[in-house]
Amino acid sequence: MKRLVLISSFLFCLAANAQQNIFMQNEIMSPVVNADHSVTINYFNPNAKSVEVSGDFLDKQKVQTQFGVQEVDGTISLTKNDNGLWTYTSQPLAPELYSYTLSVDGQRVLDPSNVYMNRDIANYSNIFIISHEKGDKGYLYSVNDVPHGDVARVWYDSPTLGMQRRMTIYTPAGYASSKEKLPVMYLLHGAGGDEEAWPAQGRAAQILDNLIALGKTKPMIVVMTNGNTDCAAAPGEWAAGMYKPSFTGRGGQSKADMDESFKDVMSYVESHYRILPGKKNHAVCGLSMGGLHTYQISKMYPDTFDYIGLFSALIQLSPAPLHGGAEAFSNTTVDDKVAQQLAQLFAAKPTLYWIAIGKTDFLYQNNEIYRKYLDSKNYKYEYVETEEGHIWRNWRDYLTIFSQRCFK
Amino acid sequence: MKRLVLISSFLFCLAANAQQNIFMQNEIMSPVVNADHSVTINYFNPNAKSVEVSGDFLDKQKVQTQFGVQEVDGTISLTKNDNGLWTYTSQPLAPELYSYTLSVDGQRVLDPSNVYMNRDIANYSNIFIISHEKGDKGYLYSVNDVPHGDVARVWYDSPTLGMQRRMTIYTPAGYASSKEKLPVMYLLHGAGGDEEAWPAQGRAAQILDNLIALGKTKPMIVVMTNGNTDCAAAPGEWAAGMYKPSFTGRGGQSKADMDESFKDVMSYVESHYRILPGKKNHAVCGLSMGGLHTYQISKMYPDTFDYIGLFSALIQLSPAPLHGGAEAFSNTTVDDKVAQQLAQLFAAKPTLYWIAIGKTDFLYQNNEIYRKYLDSKNYKYEYVETEEGHIWRNWRDYLTIFSQRCFK
Repeated sequence: MKRLVLISSFLFCLAANAQQNIFMQNEIMSPVVNADHSVTINYFNPNAKSVEVSGDFLDKQKVQTQFGVQEVDGTISLTKNDNGLWTYTSQPLAPELYSYTLSVDGQRVLDPSNVYMNRDIANYSNIFIISHEKGDKGYLYSVNDVPHGDVARVWYDSPTLGMQRRMTIYTPAGYASSKEKLPVMYLLHGAGGDEEAWPAQGRAAQILDNLIALGKTKPMIVVMTNGNTDCAAAPGEWAAGMYKPSFTGRGGQSKADMDESFKDVMSYVESHYRILPGKKNHAVCGLSMGGLHTYQISKMYPDTFDYIGLFSALIQLSPAPLHGGAEAFSNTTVDDKVAQQLAQLFAAKPTLYWIAIGKTDFLYQNNEIYRKYLDSKNYKYEYVETEEGHIWRNWRDYLTIFSQRCFK
Repeated sequence: MKRLVLISSFLFCLAANAQQNIFMQNEIMSPVVNADHSVTINYFNPNAKSVEVSGDFLDKQKVQTQFGVQEVDGTISLTKNDNGLWTYTSQPLAPELYSYTLSVDGQRVLDPSNVYMNRDIANYSNIFIISHEKGDKGYLYSVNDVPHGDVARVWYDSPTLGMQRRMTIYTPAGYASSKEKLPVMYLLHGAGGDEEAWPAQGRAAQILDNLIALGKTKPMIVVMTNGNTDCAAAPGEWAAGMYKPSFTGRGGQSKADMDESFKDVMSYVESHYRILPGKKNHAVCGLSMGGLHTYQISKMYPDTFDYIGLFSALIQLSPAPLHGGAEAFSNTTVDDKVAQQLAQLFAAKPTLYWIAIGKTDFLYQNNEIYRKYLDSKNYKYEYVETEEGHIWRNWRDYLTIFSQRCFK
C-alpha cells in the first residue's frame, strides 16, 4: 500500500497545480453521530446572523396553512461559538434514516460538510442513519458487511409507449455467478419519483441485501421502473436533457399509462433474467401512485401475482372525475369493470394482498373506503396501519415487512 | 395519460397533508442555456449582500498561493434586481460540460435551482452542458436520443485484497439482447475518485453511447473499477458507512495495490461477460493515478492489451522514494525491473500505446522524461498534447479520442 499513499501525498502537495478544486475541502465534520445515538450538526459561517436546521429527527411543529393546521418537520436554531462554528446536538434518536437541511439567514442550504443526500423532485436534503443494533431499521438501511446484490440501470423497449425506457434492476448476491432462477418483485414509485426513487430514498438494495443476509427475505430480483410514461428515464438520464424536475414528470403527452405499458416491462424482465415461473414467484408492490399502478396491474393480470402490496396507495374504484378535488378520494362508487376485475383477481386467490397506510396519510379515507369494499365482498387481504403519513419512513418499513412475506 | 395528470394534480393539491417537502419547489430556473450558447445563472435571495459565481466557463484568474501564482476558475458577481433575483449571463460558450458554484456573502453554496451536480471528493459543483451541433463535445457528453447502454454496479470477489469490491460496468446497447461477444476496455480513475468518477464526471456512458451511435467507436464493454484498495466501493456504498470522503480513499492499510489486484477484476469480467479473446480485443486506460495503474498493468501483462492509454498519467520509472516531493516526478533513474518489463511490453508490439497530457499539467515533466526514455529505446507510442492541465475536461476528451482508436 506504500505506493498509493505516496502518490496521494504527492498529488495532494501539488494540488494547486492540478487545477482541480481539491483544495476546497473543509475540515468540518457534520453530521456527527454520537455514542448515545444523538447527532451533532456542525456548520462554519462566522458572518451568518442565524442558522437553523430543519429535519425529520426534530419534534414536529404545527403550522397554519391554507389546508388548516398541519404538522411539518421541526426546526431549531444552531448555536454559534467564538470561532464562527454553529452547532446543534439532538436528543438520542431511534434507529432510522433521517433527512435535514439548513437555513442560513433565511435561505435553505445543504450542509456543506455532508456529501450524502437524497433528491425529492427538485430538492435535495442531507441524510444520516442512526442504528442501535444489528437488525434494526438503521441497520437495514445501511450498507453492512454482507454480500451485496448488483444494481443495474437497464434500457428496455416499450412498444406500447414507442420508446426505449430505463429501469433499475437489483439482482441479489450470487445471482451473477449462478444459473439459478429466482422470484421477481416489481417495486413501483410514487408521483414525483422515478427509477432512482426506490434505490435512493427507499434504500431498496440495502434493505434487500440485509434481509437476505439475515435469512429473513428470500433472494429475489427487484425491478424498479419509471412510472412517468411521458419520460424515458429519471431527469438528466434521457434525451430531454438537464431539465428541472417537477411533480408531474414532464407533464407531457404519452401514449399510455404505466399499467397499460407494464406488459413491456414484464416481457423484458422475463426474457432477460432467470425468473422462476408462475404466480407464486411474482410480486408487485408500490407506493402512492405506484400503489395505484399496483392495484391496476394486479387486477389486469389476475393470474400473474401471488404477492400484491399497496403502500399508501391511491385507489380508484371508479374512473376519477376529470376535475377532482379531495372528494375524489372519498368516492365510494364502484365501476362495473373494476368490480369484475377485482372479482376475477380475488377468485384467483392471491397468497397475500397486503395493504399498508399511516394513520395520518391523506389517502387514509380513500383506503378505508377500499377496505370496506373488500370486506363487503369477503375478499381476503391483510392490513397494516402505522403511525404518521405519506412519507418514505413508512415506505421503507413497508418494503421491509412486505418483502419478508413474499415467496414463502 | 389523463389519469396520471389527474392524480398528480390531486396529490399536488393535497401536498400539505402529504408531509413530504414537495412544497419547497422554487420556481427559479437556473441555469438557463440561451439560444446564443451563453448561460444565465439565476439565484433568488433578497437579503444577500453579495452573490458571486465561480466556474470553469469564466475567464481564469491568477491567484497567489503557497506554490506561487496559479490559475484558478474565474469568479464574477451577479447583479440583483428589485425583486431580490440575482442574475449573471455569460458570453457565448464553446461546447463543453461546465461546472460552477455560487458564493453568497462569502459562503460557497450550490445553486438551489439546479439539481445536476458532480461530486469531487467531498465537494459538489453544479453542472450544465453547452452543445452547438450534433457531434461536438457538448453533444457527446449529453444523453441524446440514441440507443443506450446499460450501466451496472457490480460486486466482485478480490481474493488478493480479501474483500468483495464494487465496480461499474457499461454494456453497450444491444449487448443484453444478443449472444455476441465484445471487446473490453478497462477505464481507471485518478486519486480522489472511485467507481463513480468516470460515469459521473467522465460522462463515460454518454460518450460511448454517442460515439457508438455515430459509428465512430466500436461497441465495447467498459469496466470502471475502484482504484483505492483500502475501500470496497465509493463513499457510502460499502460497510465503512457514510464517512466524509478524502483525497486518499480511507487512507488505511490494504493487502495490495490496484495493479497487483487487477487480475481479480479481469478474472471476474472474463468469466461473467461475453468478451472477445486475445489482446486485440483488450484495452486499458486511465487518468493520473489510474494512468499509473495503466502503466503498471500494461507492463505486468505484456500480452494482454493491444490498446493502452495514459491520460495525464503519473509515471514511475523507478520505485518512488518514501518521502517524495516535486523532485520525485522528475526522477530520471530507470529501475532494472521496469526496464525489463517495458522491453517485454514493447517487444509484444501493442497496436496503440497512447500518451496524452495537457501543456500545463503538473505531470508534464514527468511524462516528458518518460517519452524521452521511450524514444531512447525506439519504443513506439503516440503522443497527444492538449491545452490546460490536470482536469476532467481533458480526460473526457482523451476518452473520446482514445476510444475511437480501439479495436480497429
